[in-house]
Order: sequence, then structure tokens, then C-alpha cells
Amino acid sequence: MDGTSLAKRIVEEAAVKAAEISQSTGTVPCLATVLVGEDPASVTYVRMKRARCAKAGIQSRLIGLPATTTTAELIGTLAGLSADPEVHGILLQHPCGPHIDERAAFEAIAPEKDVDGVTMHSFAAMSFGLPGFVSCTPGGIMRLLEAYDVDLAGKHAVVVGRSAILGKPAGMLLLAQDATVTYCHSRTADLSRIVREADVVVAAVGRPRLIRGEDIKPGAVVIDAGYNPGNVGDVDFDTALTRARLITPVPGGVGPMTIAVLLAQTVDAAANQLGIQHR
Amino acid sequence: MDGTSLAKRIVEEAAVKAAEISQSTGTVPCLATVLVGEDPASVTYVRMKRARCAKAGIQSRLIGLPATTTTAELIGTLAGLSADPEVHGILLQHPCGPHIDERAAFEAIAPEKDVDGVTMHSFAAMSFGLPGFVSCTPGGIMRLLEAYDVDLAGKHAVVVGRSAILGKPAGMLLLAQDATVTYCHSRTADLSRIVREADVVVAAVGRPRLIRGEDIKPGAVVIDAGYNPGNVGDVDFDTALTRARLITPVPGGVGPMTIAVLLAQTVDAAANQLGIQHR
Repeated sequence: MDGTSLAKRIVEEAAVKAAEISQSTGTVPCLATVLVGEDPASVTYVRMKRARCAKAGIQSRLIGLPATTTTAELIGTLAGLSADPEVHGILLQHPCGPHIDERAAFEAIAPEKDVDGVTMHSFAAMSFGLPGFVSCTPGGIMRLLEAYDVDLAGKHAVVVGRSAILGKPAGMLLLAQDATVTYCHSRTADLSRIVREADVVVAAVGRPRLIRGEDIKPGAVVIDAGYNPGNVGDVDFDTALTRARLITPVPGGVGPMTIAVLLAQTVDAAANQLGIQHR
Repeated sequence: MDGTSLAKRIVEEAAVKAAEISQSTGTVPCLATVLVGEDPASVTYVRMKRARCAKAGIQSRLIGLPATTTTAELIGTLAGLSADPEVHGILLQHPCGPHIDERAAFEAIAPEKDVDGVTMHSFAAMSFGLPGFVSCTPGGIMRLLEAYDVDLAGKHAVVVGRSAILGKPAGMLLLAQDATVTYCHSRTADLSRIVREADVVVAAVGRPRLIRGEDIKPGAVVIDAGYNPGNVGDVDFDTALTRARLITPVPGGVGPMTIAVLLAQTVDAAANQLGIQHR
């Protein structure tokens, strides 16, 4: 499954919408990115996201805070952005470091600007099928499945991983599409046996090549949302490829989709806040 | 599994705490119950809950609204109770009727008074293992499992049903206890095959005797949270009894636990709001 091409298409659509919004309202959609400290990986991610924003005609405001920032200060910054009418979407680059209460920080983001889908409100909205923004990686996974016409109703989807921004929301979104959903994780006994029953496997755990080809049911759809150093996913691609009907590579699968969903949701947030009718 | 006895113990503990709070603060813990219309089943439930409150030394305030109440009016009432310092817990008896947007109404309940665990905030808190109130029936299920020393880590728990206040939160609470969790529902293909693999079955779908004894893995733990007319659960008790290690009857299993958790959480809410140290 070609995430790079699909992501490109989504970003192009977002760019068209962003241009329309800018023209009709005189206001350019704006994503505020908050970065605490100077972790090299985070700096790279933020730079990449800002470059994509620029290409899509989305204004990008960077708020770089020192590594010594306290949770209270970070909350103050995020609350300020939540109240700022010139900002339509807010992204808190994380992890923020061990001294920050990330959950408290996320909750300072207004739900209508939570284009990264990290708030408790957004999670519950995803879980209950209510309007709201999705977590970007699970959202990207669902768009991939949709683009490849994967019918989920009644199918058994196995999600390996249960993080608050990836595994848990991915499972809830699959459940909303009427899949039977199993959550597996580090404490799961006999992971192989469960994965072997899956029509759809979502690997989202961050353990290199945890899922082997022999555990893939022939004809299954395999989504690898894992990222490990050296461009290695959670799935052993070469062996899984021989059995899967559809599979995402790493890189070029889920990765590019994440940023694409972020940009698309930023444009949607701007449209909502500027009172523009959704098409 | 004897829910009646365990519920009695929990209510007794809540009564002791309620008395302590009343003595030390001069304020009696107060649950406000909002009832829209006069649906006979709802009236009965509310009467039962109020009687239990009285026995536990919890003050109970009933707000009966006409069946013609609009969503906006209901939200106004709930927002008023959320702001009222004399009210510590709020229960909106539901279903409220088809003309009411129940989700919007639930969201007017302040999270710190959401002793019925129905808000989006409470659901996300349950899902993320954060402090907050649990939905009462899933909370009662977890207390039953704990009381009977059911070790959940690494076990396969199958939840049949995916409602916002029962199936979904039950699965999240089981996942938080390190169970491998599968959500099944009306669209699930081959329900029997999946249930047969379960170490713990939670039936929460409201279809009489949907789960048959032959689908229970020998030695499994079976929780029947279904309620159907004529005191019939979702599990065929007689046949399941021959294979399950532990099983809840209907009635006398999960049912009494639901009210017990409601009372316990009301007392906890009062303690929190009155600034009393948790023991």
C-alpha cells in the first residue's frame, strides 16, 4: 500500500482547500507547533512538518520553548494558543521530556484546535463516532484502508499496541467501521496465535520485526505503524509480503499519511473556525 | 459470583464513609438524579436508587422534568447542578427519549460530579488509566473480578457489545488490567468461535441467551451484564454453569453492583469536593 502517493493526494487536496479559504476570507489557515527543548529527532520532525505546511499554503507558527519549561508554563502557552483567533490548529510535539505532565499539557489544547487528535475529548469522540479530530496516525491508517477498498465490517482486526495516540484510537476507529477488534500488547499470551486469525493486522508497538510472515493469515491486510531505528517496522516485511494481500512498507506506508492527516485536519479546523461550509 | 453480597459490602463501606463525611464536615453527601418523563422502568430504577441512597446516608435530590423537556432545558438543569456546591454527584437517568440529544446532555455534567461515568472525559480517563469515575456497570464488573481474585494479566477477555456506557468502557478497563481484549458485536462473524477462546467473557449486548454453554471454554469466567425481560441474561446460565469456573447469575450478579458503584462514587465525589483525604 503506497502511503506516499495517497499522502501526496491528500496534501494536494488540503492545499486547494487552504487556497480557497485564504482567498475567500483573507485569512491563511495557521498551525501552531510547540516544541519543548531541542531533541534532534523532534527538531527534525517539526522542520519537516513546517516544510509541508509551507508547500500546502498553511501558515506555520513555531513556538520553541526551552527544555527547562515547566508543565504550568507549557499549559499557559497552549491555553494562549487555544484562545488566539489567528491560530486554527495546535500541535504539541512530543515526547516533551520526563519533567512535563504531557496529559495535562494536551488537555490545554481546545478540542476544536486539536488537529493532532491527542486530547481526551478527541479520543472519546473517535470512540463514540462523534465529530472531532482523529489522532493522525490512526486516521492515516483508516484513510489507507479506505483508499484500498478494504471492507472492515465483520472482519477480525488485531491491533498490536495500546498507546493513547496510536493503538487505542486505531482500535476504536476500526470498531466504528464494524470490525471485530482485538487489542494485543506486551502482556498478551500467544501473540502469534491471535495474529494468525486476523484479517487485518495493525502493528503499532515499536518492536523491530515482532510480527513474522508465518503469523500472517494468507490474504490478510497488514498495516505496519511501527517505526524503529534504521527504517525497520514492527513487521518483517519480506516474509509478510509473501502472504499478505496488502501491506504497508516502512518507510513510505503509514509515515507520510500521518503528516497528511495533520495538514488536512488543520485546513478543516480553519474552515470550521472561519465559518466556511464543508464540501 | 454473588453480586448481591459484594454489593451489600460496598454499600456498607460507602455508608460508613458517608457518615464520617457528614460528621466531620456537617455536609451530607448528595446525589442529584434527573428524570425526564415518566417511563415506568425509569421511575422504578430511580425509586430504587433513591431508596439505596437513603439507607446509605446519602442525600438524594430528585429533579423530575416533563417528557416535553428540550435538550437545551435539560442541559440548563444539568449545568445548574454541576455548579451547585450542595450537589456532589449527578445522575441523568437514561434513556431520556428520542427527542433528547443524550450525548449533549451528558456533557453538561461536570467530570468531578460524573458519578455515573457517562461523560466523554470519564470514558477517556478510564481508557487512559487516569483518575476519574468509571461507568457503574463496568466498574461493578471489575470489582466482581477483583473480589473473586480473577487474574486478568495476559488473559483473553472477550466483550460482546460495544455501547458507550457498558461494552466499550468494560473493554478499556480490562485492557488496563493487562488483559488481551476482543470486542465483538452484532456484525461479528463467527461469534461462537471467538467466545470459545475467551478466558473471560463479558456479555453486554441485551440479547436473551445469545451465549450458549457449548461456547464457553471450560474453566472460563463468565460475566453476564445483559438484562432482558423476564430476568433473562445474555448467557444461557444453566448450560454455561456446567463449563464456567465462575459465572454471574441474572439477577443477583452484575445488577446490584451497578448501584453499589454509583453510591460508592457519590461518596468519593463528596469527599473530593469537601476536601477530605482519601483513605
